[in-house]
Amino acid sequence: MDYDTQLDTAIDRLHEEGRYRTFIDIERKRGQYPHATWTQEDGSEQPITVWCGNDYLGMGQHPVVLAAMHEAIDATGAGSGGTRNISGTTVYHKQLEAELADLHRKESALLFTSAYIANDATLSTLPKLFPGLIIYSDALNHASMIEGVRRNGGAKRIFRHNDLDHLRELLAADDPAAPKLIAFESIYSMDGDFAPIAAICDMADEFGALTYIDEVHAVGMYGPRGGGVAERDGLMGRIDIINGTLAKAYGVMGGYIAASAKMCDAIRSYAPGFIFTTSLPPAVAAGAAASVAHLKTDQTLREQHQTQAKILKLRLKGMGLPIIDHGTHIVPLIVGDPKHTKKLSDMLLSEFGIYVQPINFPTVPRGTERLRFTPSPVHGPREMDALVRALDGLWSHCALNRAELAG
Amino acid sequence: MDYDTQLDTAIDRLHEEGRYRTFIDIERKRGQYPHATWTQEDGSEQPITVWCGNDYLGMGQHPVVLAAMHEAIDATGAGSGGTRNISGTTVYHKQLEAELADLHRKESALLFTSAYIANDATLSTLPKLFPGLIIYSDALNHASMIEGVRRNGGAKRIFRHNDLDHLRELLAADDPAAPKLIAFESIYSMDGDFAPIAAICDMADEFGALTYIDEVHAVGMYGPRGGGVAERDGLMGRIDIINGTLAKAYGVMGGYIAASAKMCDAIRSYAPGFIFTTSLPPAVAAGAAASVAHLKTDQTLREQHQTQAKILKLRLKGMGLPIIDHGTHIVPLIVGDPKHTKKLSDMLLSEFGIYVQPINFPTVPRGTERLRFTPSPVHGPREMDALVRALDGLWSHCALNRAELAG
Repeated sequence: MDYDTQLDTAIDRLHEEGRYRTFIDIERKRGQYPHATWTQEDGSEQPITVWCGNDYLGMGQHPVVLAAMHEAIDATGAGSGGTRNISGTTVYHKQLEAELADLHRKESALLFTSAYIANDATLSTLPKLFPGLIIYSDALNHASMIEGVRRNGGAKRIFRHNDLDHLRELLAADDPAAPKLIAFESIYSMDGDFAPIAAICDMADEFGALTYIDEVHAVGMYGPRGGGVAERDGLMGRIDIINGTLAKAYGVMGGYIAASAKMCDAIRSYAPGFIFTTSLPPAVAAGAAASVAHLKTDQTLREQHQTQAKILKLRLKGMGLPIIDHGTHIVPLIVGDPKHTKKLSDMLLSEFGIYVQPINFPTVPRGTERLRFTPSPVHGPREMDALVRALDGLWSHCALNRAELAG
Repeated sequence: MDYDTQLDTAIDRLHEEGRYRTFIDIERKRGQYPHATWTQEDGSEQPITVWCGNDYLGMGQHPVVLAAMHEAIDATGAGSGGTRNISGTTVYHKQLEAELADLHRKESALLFTSAYIANDATLSTLPKLFPGLIIYSDALNHASMIEGVRRNGGAKRIFRHNDLDHLRELLAADDPAAPKLIAFESIYSMDGDFAPIAAICDMADEFGALTYIDEVHAVGMYGPRGGGVAERDGLMGRIDIINGTLAKAYGVMGGYIAASAKMCDAIRSYAPGFIFTTSLPPAVAAGAAASVAHLKTDQTLREQHQTQAKILKLRLKGMGLPIIDHGTHIVPLIVGDPKHTKKLSDMLLSEFGIYVQPINFPTVPRGTERLRFTPSPVHGPREMDALVRALDGLWSHCALNRAELAG
């Protein structure tokens, strides 16, 4: 067996398709977000502006978050030292779970080391709790949901993205007595579009299905207390399981589900991905709890965030650049070819100090490769101007298509 | 569908079998490990001594680790703000990966958010890289390895724990031309026994198989630089993929693999569990890197650790308590019944302020339920005396069996 040759083949395939990933080494400067230092392969450093991070509100540098982390380290040290069951549950974890249950107005919340594992572990465990469960999963659900649905080998149905007719068709075709779950996201991060949450809840009621929503690109940013799109639309009570992250708008790390006490207790007891892993460091839990608590009352950051997104979209549209706009904070600019996307990203970085990562297959479908901008309250007018001018110039330089000029 | 009733059924099953888990809320006191505060359900607090943590060397309170974390928070903030590919790679991640590659004398290392996901993601991705791969997995491998092997749906063979004859039989029965991988642990954490690493490597050579070792209960603690049992035995060069954790002996959080540059590059590029998740907070990576670097030279902690384990085992054996002793640092005391184990654990905690979690099915096979002690350099003679006396008294009180008195 020549294992090396097989590895070469696997890696060469990525190069050929122009989707080999090169990680850019950056360090954001606390207090100076979105400014950061780019360390190149040869060790030289260059100042850059980050335009593709998921720290959507800049909470990663917020004093309340950092103070909570420093305090926890001083009080209790670095790691938790165990799984949740074996010495790894602390007051910090409990406080954070209480904060999250309250955020979503649920009886309970359950922390995971990431929202990835929260999705994967929960969705793969539900069929153990509800034998014969059929999961109806939106075609554009995140990789972590796909992995979770796939993993247990239970029954699954994939409905076309946001297609209620297709969902109904699939639900109606199955045994009415079978346990069912509809799994979807509130905001799909690659196109930035919303799910029809209320209509999906109606359909779940009609067919007696549970509902599972991934709000990772919404918590902290939508709803009067940051509870997500379901909170904004008054629908949290109609969702059985809400999945969220502490690593994006909340600026730290970790993921969770919020649900009934019984549901959390059962997942907690049966999910290997929850049971057999060291719990989050207390400092991470403390920082996240401070962030969640802060964003329950601070409306300013949420408003600035939406304003910045609107301004960027308006300016890019004004130049005829083909962005997708579904009214969320995410600004995808479609290039449509992996090599061009990579080239544009490279030029933005080296010539303009603007860092936006190319997004290629399998994160997005082939032919829809894109640059994906994430404007935030920390992006001021100067950064915005620099980005818009750079894109305008490069678009002309590369002779890329423009849409009809929008208003 | 009455989903609530089904949840009740699932939870009741655990109660009936005496394996419903109650998490104990503890907070260790920095600088005073293993002392901690236990917060009870009613909010009252009680001082306790932790005897079941996996912070084996007390690195979670080491000044070099905490200083590195504080510095990183001050410099760059809380979270990384992205996946490794999209703005989430920092100098801290790169430094830690370099530190780990050097630790294991491999070309590369790859960080994951946990060793759980490192195992799961790597083992489930390998069959994509080596089509037709057959994985030979030790029967007592950790849940994360089982999940990884299971997940991809590829071919798997389970060999009886540490049984080389059975492994040979299985290898010999398969197509000699098929790609193969033997997956095992260096120390099995529940019994504390070693794998026959050299013999497994010989067999891998004979059958042209790759080798995958999980060293999570060994890194930091064995080998002249903390590289694990494979380092101690001069075998690291014969292992293709080494898996380790930063959450146990290194006292922080996170997991990794160390392997050839090509192997890491391929896993990095193809594993959803690596690609689609936010990277570790820079402060976590910085703390872990400081810990790994420190334990490359500090022999004292490793020696104290082994000494403490030897003393505890000797004293418990001296009283005829049925411990398992395979020469590692882990001290399992077999009770053999889930309800008795829970009861003993409860009495140790409430009457003696000694915290050791009961270990029940599915973590260990039914009938082998146990208390599992993890002595460490921070457990002094006073803590040791208190534990031994409490166990002696309880063992008599509960009329539990003693082994023949050992020397």
